[in-house]
Amino acid sequence: MLNLQSKSPKRWLEQVDAALEEILVDHAHCEHKAAATAMSLMGSYIDHTELCREMTRIVDEELEHFHMVLDLLRQRGIPFRRQPPGRYGRRLRGLVRPHEPQRAIDRLLVAGLIEARSCERFSLLADHVQDRELAEFYRSLFESEARHHTTYVRLACQFGDESAVRQRLRDLAVAEAEIIAEGHPLPRMHS
Amino acid sequence: MLNLQSKSPKRWLEQVDAALEEILVDHAHCEHKAAATAMSLMGSYIDHTELCREMTRIVDEELEHFHMVLDLLRQRGIPFRRQPPGRYGRRLRGLVRPHEPQRAIDRLLVAGLIEARSCERFSLLADHVQDRELAEFYRSLFESEARHHTTYVRLACQFGDESAVRQRLRDLAVAEAEIIAEGHPLPRMHS
Repeated sequence: MLNLQSKSPKRWLEQVDAALEEILVDHAHCEHKAAATAMSLMGSYIDHTELCREMTRIVDEELEHFHMVLDLLRQRGIPFRRQPPGRYGRRLRGLVRPHEPQRAIDRLLVAGLIEARSCERFSLLADHVQDRELAEFYRSLFESEARHHTTYVRLACQFGDESAVRQRLRDLAVAEAEIIAEGHPLPRMHS
Repeated sequence: MLNLQSKSPKRWLEQVDAALEEILVDHAHCEHKAAATAMSLMGSYIDHTELCREMTRIVDEELEHFHMVLDLLRQRGIPFRRQPPGRYGRRLRGLVRPHEPQRAIDRLLVAGLIEARSCERFSLLADHVQDRELAEFYRSLFESEARHHTTYVRLACQFGDESAVRQRLRDLAVAEAEIIAEGHPLPRMHS
């Protein structure tokens, strides 16, 4: 359903155990970045009515999640702060082809893969963390991230031949799995 | 209340009469740009909790207005399309000082002045257009734009000494009035 080409390595859950607070702070940043990505896609394809409607929904939901994570940090006395970003987003954006309509297809598919990986990791967190409130929180976010993934893939298919778009999704998912396999020393939601 | 240093010239209402459809299409773009501006400010000052809360509210409201304008265009059979932008936003953004915290102050004040001018023009449109539904629509948007103006000015005051920020607001409002007085041949919400 999520079109990912790998499962997260155990190494990531070790990072979670060693630096949960840093991962939670990164999660807040991820929600804001997901909203900003949807807003930016809307600006680039403003005359695509369905895309604008879906991006508006995603902006609203991601900003709502952002504030939910901020509340959760506040309740736990964890200061929300800037953090050096990991490499994941930048590496994925580097795969976007420069010319339209390939650019639109790739931006949408990359956004969809990020949602898919978040979704997979939320599910891992829900099963892994001892803290029941936190586990429930991650379980509650799973459904919307999976839906966003599906939305992005469906919209990408409107910018080109569907079978070519689905092939491109597989290729990008292979690249995404390689980036995930490399990992990153900073503990992040996508490290 | 709106801190503007001029009233819109009669010339603008002549542009409205001559090219109402083009102005309505521009209005949709303005609502999207207002949402994108709030999202961008949030990204730049992500650790400012109150700013993030207010920007989220503005993003939600401006995107709601964007879709309201799109619906209105659809009902009237006016195609929503890309249009070359006017000069107003670019000229105002050119006044933003490059270094923090002046940059934050200026970005917030410029956003606030754009809301103020929109507000003034919505009020003019509500009184001017013959079409009752359109007049009501513009009257209904007035309150939120005025509130956004107040929010931006209040937030700007948190980035510096209040009296200096209010002086800067007056200076920027004088510059804004000059840009409005020059006008622009393309019929736009801020021409």
